[in-house]
Amino acid sequence: MANLFAPIPPELPEEIFEVLVQTKNFRLERILSAGQATPPGTWYDQDTHEWVVLLSGSAGLRFADEPEPRVLRPGDYLLIPAHRRHRVEWTDPARPTVWLALHYPGEG
Amino acid sequence: MANLFAPIPPELPEEIFEVLVQTKNFRLERILSAGQATPPGTWYDQDTHEWVVLLSGSAGLRFADEPEPRVLRPGDYLLIPAHRRHRVEWTDPARPTVWLALHYPGEG
Repeated sequence: MANLFAPIPPELPEEIFEVLVQTKNFRLERILSAGQATPPGTWYDQDTHEWVVLLSGSAGLRFADEPEPRVLRPGDYLLIPAHRRHRVEWTDPARPTVWLALHYPGEG
Repeated sequence: MANLFAPIPPELPEEIFEVLVQTKNFRLERILSAGQATPPGTWYDQDTHEWVVLLSGSAGLRFADEPEPRVLRPGDYLLIPAHRRHRVEWTDPARPTVWLALHYPGEG
């Protein structure tokens, strides 16, 4: 048995992506952030849907078609549809931000 | 945007199962428990794998092939393979127990 909140390294120079479950139909991963953000001017444009929940810390998630980032607190979740451009404007600099993300293709 | 921890009804006479994402390849659900357990003498024997994480509260998860229940605390996760018989011996009577469960078939 493992825990999503431990061990969290005291220093996180880069975000950590850990695959928890992967099949040919989806990928479930844990993401650890510590103040990182998507590089300025960069947007994610993904081929797959992403269901994501923030479990600790906080973050600002910006969609290209929205003027302001959405502020995510622990427990907040949402679906990022494939090809809806988005970026992480900020993550909590004071404590680790733990995400769970479920990536899966659209059904044809 | 929704939150896994709210709204939680003050009284939960029965467990609540809420499907968050469903495709033909998996089902992601939130489970809310408040002291419930699997009925005595009953075991779950599922056709699908279940990846499960406990996010708040606590629970005792017993496998039929283990003598004692595993105690799950927030963040604890594990995979329950298809047809590994198990039951929930207890959930926290004092506060809501929130689970995320991802059910998916084995890959043939």
